Amino acid sequence: MDNNFELPNKQACLDQLTKLGIEYIVHNHDPVPTMEDVVKVKVGDGTAYVKNLLYVDKKSNYYLILANHTTQVGKLFWKTLGLASGNMRLSKEEQIGEALKSSKGNVNPFAVANDTNNLVKNIIIDEELTKYQKLALHPIENTSTVEISLDDLQNKFLKILNRQFTVLQLTDVAAEQKLEQQQKQEQQQKEQQKDQQNLQTLAITVKKSDFSEWYQQVIRKAELIEYYDVSGCYILRPWAYFIWEQIQRFFDDLIRTEEVENTYFPMFLSAKHLNKEKEHVEGFKAEVAWVTKYGESDLNEPLAIRPTSETIMYPAFAKWVQSHRDLPLKVNQWTNIVRWEFKFPTPFIRTREFLWQEGHTAHSTREEAVKQVYTILDFYEQVYGELLAVPVIKGIKTESEKFAGGDFTTTVETIIPQNGRGLQGATSHHLGQNFSKMFEINFEDDKKQKSFAWQTSWGLTTRSIGAMIMFHGDDKGLVLPPRIAKYQIVIIPIIHKDLNEQQLNERCEQIRQILIKLKLRVHLDSRDNYSPGWKFNKWEQKGVPIRLEIGPGEFKNNEVRVVQRFDNKKYQIKLEELNQLNQILDNIHNAMLDKARSDLNSRIKQADNWKDFMSQLNQRNTILTRWCQREECEKQVKTKSGIESKEKDSEIDGQVQLTGSAKTLCMPLKQDQIQEGQLCFHCGQQAKKYVLWGRSY
Amino acid sequence: MDNNFELPNKQACLDQLTKLGIEYIVHNHDPVPTMEDVVKVKVGDGTAYVKNLLYVDKKSNYYLILANHTTQVGKLFWKTLGLASGNMRLSKEEQIGEALKSSKGNVNPFAVANDTNNLVKNIIIDEELTKYQKLALHPIENTSTVEISLDDLQNKFLKILNRQFTVLQLTDVAAEQKLEQQQKQEQQQKEQQKDQQNLQTLAITVKKSDFSEWYQQVIRKAELIEYYDVSGCYILRPWAYFIWEQIQRFFDDLIRTEEVENTYFPMFLSAKHLNKEKEHVEGFKAEVAWVTKYGESDLNEPLAIRPTSETIMYPAFAKWVQSHRDLPLKVNQWTNIVRWEFKFPTPFIRTREFLWQEGHTAHSTREEAVKQVYTILDFYEQVYGELLAVPVIKGIKTESEKFAGGDFTTTVETIIPQNGRGLQGATSHHLGQNFSKMFEINFEDDKKQKSFAWQTSWGLTTRSIGAMIMFHGDDKGLVLPPRIAKYQIVIIPIIHKDLNEQQLNERCEQIRQILIKLKLRVHLDSRDNYSPGWKFNKWEQKGVPIRLEIGPGEFKNNEVRVVQRFDNKKYQIKLEELNQLNQILDNIHNAMLDKARSDLNSRIKQADNWKDFMSQLNQRNTILTRWCQREECEKQVKTKSGIESKEKDSEIDGQVQLTGSAKTLCMPLKQDQIQEGQLCFHCGQQAKKYVLWGRSY
Repeated sequence: MDNNFELPNKQACLDQLTKLGIEYIVHNHDPVPTMEDVVKVKVGDGTAYVKNLLYVDKKSNYYLILANHTTQVGKLFWKTLGLASGNMRLSKEEQIGEALKSSKGNVNPFAVANDTNNLVKNIIIDEELTKYQKLALHPIENTSTVEISLDDLQNKFLKILNRQFTVLQLTDVAAEQKLEQQQKQEQQQKEQQKDQQNLQTLAITVKKSDFSEWYQQVIRKAELIEYYDVSGCYILRPWAYFIWEQIQRFFDDLIRTEEVENTYFPMFLSAKHLNKEKEHVEGFKAEVAWVTKYGESDLNEPLAIRPTSETIMYPAFAKWVQSHRDLPLKVNQWTNIVRWEFKFPTPFIRTREFLWQEGHTAHSTREEAVKQVYTILDFYEQVYGELLAVPVIKGIKTESEKFAGGDFTTTVETIIPQNGRGLQGATSHHLGQNFSKMFEINFEDDKKQKSFAWQTSWGLTTRSIGAMIMFHGDDKGLVLPPRIAKYQIVIIPIIHKDLNEQQLNERCEQIRQILIKLKLRVHLDSRDNYSPGWKFNKWEQKGVPIRLEIGPGEFKNNEVRVVQRFDNKKYQIKLEELNQLNQILDNIHNAMLDKARSDLNSRIKQADNWKDFMSQLNQRNTILTRWCQREECEKQVKTKSGIESKEKDSEIDGQVQLTGSAKTLCMPLKQDQIQEGQLCFHCGQQAKKYVLWGRSY
Repeated sequence: MDNNFELPNKQACLDQLTKLGIEYIVHNHDPVPTMEDVVKVKVGDGTAYVKNLLYVDKKSNYYLILANHTTQVGKLFWKTLGLASGNMRLSKEEQIGEALKSSKGNVNPFAVANDTNNLVKNIIIDEELTKYQKLALHPIENTSTVEISLDDLQNKFLKILNRQFTVLQLTDVAAEQKLEQQQKQEQQQKEQQKDQQNLQTLAITVKKSDFSEWYQQVIRKAELIEYYDVSGCYILRPWAYFIWEQIQRFFDDLIRTEEVENTYFPMFLSAKHLNKEKEHVEGFKAEVAWVTKYGESDLNEPLAIRPTSETIMYPAFAKWVQSHRDLPLKVNQWTNIVRWEFKFPTPFIRTREFLWQEGHTAHSTREEAVKQVYTILDFYEQVYGELLAVPVIKGIKTESEKFAGGDFTTTVETIIPQNGRGLQGATSHHLGQNFSKMFEINFEDDKKQKSFAWQTSWGLTTRSIGAMIMFHGDDKGLVLPPRIAKYQIVIIPIIHKDLNEQQLNERCEQIRQILIKLKLRVHLDSRDNYSPGWKFNKWEQKGVPIRLEIGPGEFKNNEVRVVQRFDNKKYQIKLEELNQLNQILDNIHNAMLDKARSDLNSRIKQADNWKDFMSQLNQRNTILTRWCQREECEKQVKTKSGIESKEKDSEIDGQVQLTGSAKTLCMPLKQDQIQEGQLCFHCGQQAKKYVLWGRSY
């Protein structure tokens, strides 16, 4: 007998059945591609409608399942066959074509005759079918149905084709349910494990005492910064940029009271203008980036990218200022700035591109300009204190540290408590008439005399955000002062079996609405794929000032649990007391500032002689000394302290010692009068001023 | 007798007086450098204290005046001597030294002996002194006083020295007063002339119909723009930058409802990333500016300055997007952008550096991304309509005009009524998966399948301000829609002789305070050196929507006079009706938008054939046509319209004709269905869409 036949169509199939001596009844009808259609074909009682399922694994082994149409085909039976259910997929159209030369809606056991490559490894027959006299099957095409006995199919058809077949129970309801539960549990375990892993990746792996590494981790894990492939440039993510926007709004409001107007000057600068103020250009030229090309062409004249905008703005000032009535002229701009620095870049603290504001004013008298310088300095102190909760010391820079081309520079300096390094927070310069003479910014005074304008310039950068992070962050991550936090409060529902989830979510939403009305910035974290523990960690790391937890206890008692990020204080408040949260946030701000101030103060020591000076420096302090105010002396201190600190052991008490010179940070505005006979701590000449020395950022 | 003596000191002087036979009484005392001191020296009755004044003109001719100490030395007497008082100045220290070898406080007639170069041309003696018996003078030094007679001084001292002297009345009180008045009048006339001149320089010298020149003048004279010495870069002055700030605030509020977060990405871009999306880089590379140097050194790898930030942002997107739960990702940034364009630069409209916002989103489905594209397009329509009072047409760009590398581009287009030029207002792009595939921004969907994100990007620039100026400005200058005006209202007091100036100013200030409480942006122009007329012109030119005048009538009747910039409507309102001003400003906004819309609509014509198309184009219109949507046909229209418009006479009806090709502006979203058989206006093939054609900015 020819056991190598193929069945290209219905007629060939029916002919072959006849040839094999298989008894059949045939019904012709419209196509019945789905089981829904199939069962509409009238067949005899005792005839089972057969569901034909073609499975395939990743290695293209095919398995044809013939199941009673009412059988829920489970997964367990695969195991009986030594196969993994997880590997099995229902065949797609093209796979049906590959294995059976057939198509979807036309899968049937007769088509196995067309599997000339022996891809179908087994035909699995539902034990249920053994209970029926006949099976209703399609003879290749679903426009007919034949009724034949299972026995004929097995022994007269499949055996001739040399095909393996197995009769099996396809569903074990209890077992299948058990399996399903088991898989669900496994899935949950996996997710919890992932949660744990996430927590571990999320967690900062070092303590704050390992300061540099800690800082790098905090800024990334709190989602403030993303790294970028141009050295010294960083991406400010929304969590950080929001802080900058708060600073912008706060400072804009302050300078508006001084009638400063915002403006925008071009970023490019011709060499001619840049070179106009000699001291100024000397101070910046090594760091200036130059555009020399566009497209494929060279520019006629290279253009500098602004490192600061004095020389960009002042030619225009000269046009605008004619009479004393055009003064004061006060403008400000918020821009990006480029300084191609060589020192190791640190996000926020020292970057090659950064954001800042720069204010520029011109006045008719020196007094007025000097007053402007100090008013702005006060504003900077407010930005640091009232927004960022960072204390600063107002002072004047020494001659060697002042702004290149200016007359004198005032500064707000802070000291990072962790390492005692000084950090220049913002500077406000008195430019005198240096620039106005170079750029011919002159005016006719009320006595018709020509006079040069008196000028100021002042700037505050994204560096301020870095100082804030360094001051307040802790081992768990970022700690945001409330006034700059994008979310001041995060609400976390604690789902519990005793609590109706929908009711809980409604309560949380209700609380959120109350807080919005209180003008608080609030976020409800109702994600269902993270555990409360994961969320606690996440928002702690991002520094959100207050977490509100609502669990079964809080729900029942109409309370919320308040957890303060800054000091981890936890307490309950009633729903009707939610309006206290504004005050609570203010209290947190004040407490953070107080603590920061005391941390800063602990890093300022006094010294009367060189030995004490170096000893304090090596204990990571800044040092306030009497000083002769001579540049030569300042230079010597810088050199000597650099040399001597290199000679020290690199570790003291297990702590890595900082090396590097001490330089002057500032001469604080608030300082005692120096008496005749009080001497410079270093050179022994008559002292003139107290000055603060330290290593610096 | 030796008439060539010098008198180096007191002793020499006294000796000489003796020698000349001059009778004198001498008093020795402490130095008496001022007249105040001089009169304390006791001298005889009938002795006059002499005030010695040394004048000098520009040619170093000196004149010594001896006046009675009570005489107010006038100016008229100079005329009697044939000299111009305007040329005379009191000698400074070094000039006294030059002429008399003496010093301030030591000027006296004896020192003329030391004028060996004959610089002192005349000695003018106060007629008053003739009434006294003696004069009190210092013998060279002011530590002594001698009393001698005027006669001796004239005839025994000055005559010997061969010195001219003239006795004159130094003050003619009436005449002097008259002169003073006369000069004051002249001064006032001069100031008024200057005022007039100012008005003329202030005034725009051309009508709006001379559009290009008009635009250049408006932007400068309204103090929106200052020119800058780098071609294609301009200074945005506070009056313009304020508008940009309003746009920022308005748009930030809109996108916040879509949960878009603000952020900042670096400006620099490595060639590697820029080149990643091929079509994209082809679209931009000719305009990219390259930084190749810093300080004196070359960069290892040149850095591009962002022409747009797709290729800057998307590598970071790829890091942030892992799961479908990380989507949608929506960020926006407000930055400067550099595109080194070759077309002629026009402030606001086409500049090499400009300001914009660029939003970038990534979504898990195409539908969601497409929805985002259109939501943003609606926001852009709101910015134009609700803020700038500029109507726009929403549409889709043709394939050849879409964003390089994107899938499709939607746009808000406007048409400048003055010349019928199309102006692309802002675009919102559907990027499809083109960039996500290049940058591998993929995620695991909820069925654990990897999928590429669907992206959008969208931008709005400072160009929008240019469109606003072009739409609303008139022959007098800028006209600002109220919602973007830095000053919405300017108050101008009209000083009048019937009105107490202080009371008027108080009333104006009171009104200002009321308006501030109404949250209106108001400015009180109380400058006393400009006339009301000058101020009217100034603020009209700067486009302030409402001027409030308060003159005698308004003061008395507790009214203000309202003058609307937009339509020059003038009317009175009572002080208690000031709170109507908010509504009045809203009405002005709406009326401006209505007028602008009708102006825009008048520039849209339909055409069914080439002849009508060109005719409409040459009448400065845009043309809506049926179109086959074939790129080849679009290209032909562009080429042909360019050639044919060059062939036209350059003037029709005295108006300079625009030349240049018509290109597709957009396929408007709102358009009729095209029927089978309706043909493309140009090629005659079956039409598919209506498209708007025009010359464009």
